[in-house]
Amino acid sequence: MNCILLPVENFSANTAKINDVVQVDHVNNILGAKVGDTLKIGQLGGNLGTAVIEDIAADSIQLYDVQLAITPPAKLDLTVVLALPRPKVLRRLIMDMTALGVRDIVLVNSYRTQKSYWQSPLLERLDEFVLEGLQQGVDTIAPRITLQKRFKPFVEDTLTSLVSNQAIVAHPYAEQSFSEFRQLDTTLELPSLVCIGAEGGWIDYEIALLAAHGCTPVHIGPRILRTEAAVNVMLGQWLL
Amino acid sequence: MNCILLPVENFSANTAKINDVVQVDHVNNILGAKVGDTLKIGQLGGNLGTAVIEDIAADSIQLYDVQLAITPPAKLDLTVVLALPRPKVLRRLIMDMTALGVRDIVLVNSYRTQKSYWQSPLLERLDEFVLEGLQQGVDTIAPRITLQKRFKPFVEDTLTSLVSNQAIVAHPYAEQSFSEFRQLDTTLELPSLVCIGAEGGWIDYEIALLAAHGCTPVHIGPRILRTEAAVNVMLGQWLL
Repeated sequence: MNCILLPVENFSANTAKINDVVQVDHVNNILGAKVGDTLKIGQLGGNLGTAVIEDIAADSIQLYDVQLAITPPAKLDLTVVLALPRPKVLRRLIMDMTALGVRDIVLVNSYRTQKSYWQSPLLERLDEFVLEGLQQGVDTIAPRITLQKRFKPFVEDTLTSLVSNQAIVAHPYAEQSFSEFRQLDTTLELPSLVCIGAEGGWIDYEIALLAAHGCTPVHIGPRILRTEAAVNVMLGQWLL
Repeated sequence: MNCILLPVENFSANTAKINDVVQVDHVNNILGAKVGDTLKIGQLGGNLGTAVIEDIAADSIQLYDVQLAITPPAKLDLTVVLALPRPKVLRRLIMDMTALGVRDIVLVNSYRTQKSYWQSPLLERLDEFVLEGLQQGVDTIAPRITLQKRFKPFVEDTLTSLVSNQAIVAHPYAEQSFSEFRQLDTTLELPSLVCIGAEGGWIDYEIALLAAHGCTPVHIGPRILRTEAAVNVMLGQWLL
């Protein structure tokens, strides 16, 4: 937690209060902060800044001298279409994509997505994972997350409307590498949409359908990475 | 597991056997492979290739027609000096760095490394995590892993001998970004050594000592990432 994000209703004039148990615990036990200390805070959907601790109670912390003058970092001009992964890795993937600044996330069904993944109670907790990601990445603007339980209608009816310039699909068995693809693009712009499979990747039918709708298959070399690692390796190109 | 790596003693002429319980379970229950099916295999420290299943017993699988003609992908010309992280994330970090092809890994003490981390039983299981990483990344050559429990003597006496060209240390509060650093380097070579902190990063003293021994501090933008995410984002530059 590199900043503490509070909803707008927790602010009043130049004071604010922390009443989320995880955040209160973080201030007390991880930061070990005391009355008079300055905290890095932010307003969800608003600015970043600082505030000073006025009072620490068992379940809430009162802040004063709230200063919110720093605009959050720009979002990446990027939509990530991710095959819904195992619930175990969903939390970290949402956190990481949020911390990286992805603007739009589409969780889509795929052949290798087990049906049970769509029943996972973790899908009800996406807001929580987004908050963790924002507090990690020091941002206040949540990504838009959409669930698409049907692959074919999504690709055929919706996908192309999401692409503002180029689109790619990560595929270890593609003929072209991501860097070859980028060298061919004379605009030097990064793609605005990236499709990434879950464990086991996309099947040939899915690659063909995505390719038919404007997504160029690209690989990142002979090494096959875990979904989490692949997401960070690929999206790192937008940061660096 | 994108290939099954076996130690040299499991091979004999053009046959081989799988007798590791995790690997046997993977073939039976994840791949659902049967007698006559071809598996992607490799010899630890040797080549990659294929073999055909001859027989499946409760605790071992016999292979024939072993063909090991594919050389493993080149290692990255890279040493990663990583502040020893929490045991919980150590496994994934070792797996990912191995899958990415890092040649040398140094786990070093840092101010924010808790003493208890050095007592973790997971440090006895690094070979297991390396094997997982190799089988994920489809490689056969393990990275060299060194433990350095004392930060100052390591930096002062050993670090410079590990640097063959440039070295950097990842630091969110550095003045220069990684991409600015790369643009300044007229050789266009990537650094051969990267230092990455654990949760909470390096303290100023550590940054100063690393800088005094040839490591340029660089940031990757305003967003602060989890150690795992930062490792993959940074090292992705060597893949892409």
